[in-house]
Amino acid sequence: MALLIRNASYVVRDAWRVERDADVLIAEDRIAAVGHMGLTDAADLYVLDGGGRAVIPGLINAHTHLYQNFLKGLRDDIALVEWCNVTLYPLAYAIHRQRWVEHDETCGYHWAILSGLEMLRGGVTCCVDMNMNMDAVLRGWQEVGIRGIAAVALADQWLPAPLREFNALVRADALRFVQTWHNAHPRLSIVLAPSTPFICSRDLLLWARDRAAEVGLGLQIHLAETRYEVAQVLRETGLTPVAYAHSLGLLGPRTTAVHCVHVTVAEIDLLAETGTTVVHCPKSNLKLGSGIAPLPLMLSRGVKVALAADGAASNDTLDMFDEMRFAALLHKGINEDPAAITARQVFQMATQAGAEAFGIAAGTLDPGKLADLAIVRLDRPHLVPLHDIINTLVYCARASDVETTIVGGEIVMQDGMIRTVDEAAAGIAARSFGARLYEQGLALWQEVSSR
Amino acid sequence: MALLIRNASYVVRDAWRVERDADVLIAEDRIAAVGHMGLTDAADLYVLDGGGRAVIPGLINAHTHLYQNFLKGLRDDIALVEWCNVTLYPLAYAIHRQRWVEHDETCGYHWAILSGLEMLRGGVTCCVDMNMNMDAVLRGWQEVGIRGIAAVALADQWLPAPLREFNALVRADALRFVQTWHNAHPRLSIVLAPSTPFICSRDLLLWARDRAAEVGLGLQIHLAETRYEVAQVLRETGLTPVAYAHSLGLLGPRTTAVHCVHVTVAEIDLLAETGTTVVHCPKSNLKLGSGIAPLPLMLSRGVKVALAADGAASNDTLDMFDEMRFAALLHKGINEDPAAITARQVFQMATQAGAEAFGIAAGTLDPGKLADLAIVRLDRPHLVPLHDIINTLVYCARASDVETTIVGGEIVMQDGMIRTVDEAAAGIAARSFGARLYEQGLALWQEVSSR
Repeated sequence: MALLIRNASYVVRDAWRVERDADVLIAEDRIAAVGHMGLTDAADLYVLDGGGRAVIPGLINAHTHLYQNFLKGLRDDIALVEWCNVTLYPLAYAIHRQRWVEHDETCGYHWAILSGLEMLRGGVTCCVDMNMNMDAVLRGWQEVGIRGIAAVALADQWLPAPLREFNALVRADALRFVQTWHNAHPRLSIVLAPSTPFICSRDLLLWARDRAAEVGLGLQIHLAETRYEVAQVLRETGLTPVAYAHSLGLLGPRTTAVHCVHVTVAEIDLLAETGTTVVHCPKSNLKLGSGIAPLPLMLSRGVKVALAADGAASNDTLDMFDEMRFAALLHKGINEDPAAITARQVFQMATQAGAEAFGIAAGTLDPGKLADLAIVRLDRPHLVPLHDIINTLVYCARASDVETTIVGGEIVMQDGMIRTVDEAAAGIAARSFGARLYEQGLALWQEVSSR
Repeated sequence: MALLIRNASYVVRDAWRVERDADVLIAEDRIAAVGHMGLTDAADLYVLDGGGRAVIPGLINAHTHLYQNFLKGLRDDIALVEWCNVTLYPLAYAIHRQRWVEHDETCGYHWAILSGLEMLRGGVTCCVDMNMNMDAVLRGWQEVGIRGIAAVALADQWLPAPLREFNALVRADALRFVQTWHNAHPRLSIVLAPSTPFICSRDLLLWARDRAAEVGLGLQIHLAETRYEVAQVLRETGLTPVAYAHSLGLLGPRTTAVHCVHVTVAEIDLLAETGTTVVHCPKSNLKLGSGIAPLPLMLSRGVKVALAADGAASNDTLDMFDEMRFAALLHKGINEDPAAITARQVFQMATQAGAEAFGIAAGTLDPGKLADLAIVRLDRPHLVPLHDIINTLVYCARASDVETTIVGGEIVMQDGMIRTVDEAAAGIAARSFGARLYEQGLALWQEVSSR
């Protein structure tokens, strides 16, 4: 049965092309047509009302660590290293142990569902999760209905000793994961993710590059997030992080470089020349005190930039409306220039740029594209009056204004009701599982750290 | 009839004092008790369920220009002067003309209702509106049920010629307004608001100071918002804006100084010594490219700081959750220090600091205080799991998580339904009135500007 969104007040094809009072026809997983179709109700047509609403491309969250959803609100005003010791490592240790020692498969399922619900509710139709042990995450994604990109994390140095006990498993498990999931489901894809230069040996970075080339996968890597990292990589390699990654052949059109906060102009040009997409995470960079990426400069020098929430522990949401608003406002203020960046540029980052970076046929509303989209209500007081739909989406709209979310032609949320899973039950399960896992992790961590 | 919020999961008395599983008893317009009361249902007790919810002090938006709600989404990426010419002045001219020439009283009513709905929906129980011609705004506030502080704007120089034709009316109308509304309604109060040093003559600033002292009113003034203003005031007076305001006796515990973006350390100390409250507007300062106020420095040197959204045209919402999030994250990033400011400090700015600055017995949940509060749902995926209620409110919660809002003991919104006005009708009226007024203003402005 085809799906028709009828008479939408605005159909946002992309940041620069908007149609008024138009219909969107969806057949199977694709957009079949956009325009003034005058179709009437028919037995084989399921109709959604677009009146007083905007249809927009689904937002793409180009980088997260979904397990951090269990750490929301645990971090405030403490520095990175201390926070790693009291929150991140205990949880990571519990996760690895559960998955690799106890062979317990529940790991990841609950946070995939919990974060999937949050994102689908906010019009996010696709996310990239960087982590190890992602099998259960992918099962969660299939259940909740979000399009997911598994960024298979790799790391083999710098980590504290108890975590290094799992090093031997990392490469083999990544290969097994790729073998299991590559091309396994139309809504799932994979990139390899050597975490960041200073926690990956040169050997591991080259291994990731070569395996990605062999299988035909993209790469995702954290680059130049903190001054600490820049100093560390410079000391160890004689090069700054982006230049070092380039020297190893890690940059290119299928690579996403996350953060790029502390980059030189020469590095910005390297990113542009190689066609690498930078993933900008403004809220995370602010919260961790990492600094502020030179976004307007990157855009003006031709770098492709996507947008992301990063892990919930440093944000603490997966809210791409919030993220767009921060990106749009922050750089105007930092540069003391209201023209430093426009709402249209930011909207493009949150949609089209993400889709292009990962080779997904989504990000704009055009015939032939995947039907990944959101329907946004426009009648709430904070959206009235409406002078310019893109400005309103970026500066005024909230995740909670999304009424209906469609992924690959499937209505996953309709009129604010999740249709794929039992949301109340999933919330309760995630809450109790999350608390137990974190407490278990803390106890384990204290034990193994004191050895 | 008394009102009981029963068994709230969290009662946030203020940023540092939180009670678990507690009741809040409200009698008339005040909080009667907070604690574990074990009251049962009774005929004279109206009960709201607090389970799975937080009760928080109503948020206080310490500075706005509500007429700008009609200009939402009209401004992006253009500089201040150009924007004034194409949006702000035309609307201001239409407003003054309608009110002062045509004696049409509808002016202000619609934007008071529209903005009131947005704020009450977002848990904002009190706002400060700086404008002229506020009679209809105050009638709108009474109808919608928000607590309102009228900051009666005064200006007599720098404005373009067509607007100066109204100069003669400004002082007389301000006095008439004060006479009409001072102590007229328990939810309304007044401050005098000489707009900013460079658009007020020295004579007008002194007039405002003396009238405020005579009647017993506070003052609100924009200070040090832009580098342009600093240069202008320095050239005209030999002093920087805060120092100039101090030299005229304008600072003090009943003065709120809005923005203070470009201030010297000596000026920060002046603000602290005089007990002046700075009103921080992070999103507006970012959007206009004004810069970033040195908030951590102000707080560490003892300045009292409240929080505000400023006008919707430079924001473009009146969302104090958004504003808290920007304040909390921005300064960590700018200072590259995750400890630069805490969620608790920001929550205090959005509640207690605003109440204290305007002498309102609200801002904390303690017996004897005004029952200005909001009930926030905690069961949505983006709020799960909950480790620390203040972190969750500042970093995760949205205006749309507010379920019920109470002002002076009156339930103005319950379970997401506005109880005071017909919201749908008000939205439609505001939309059509706003569009008409702006178009009329543009036409009039082109006519008078070309004379």
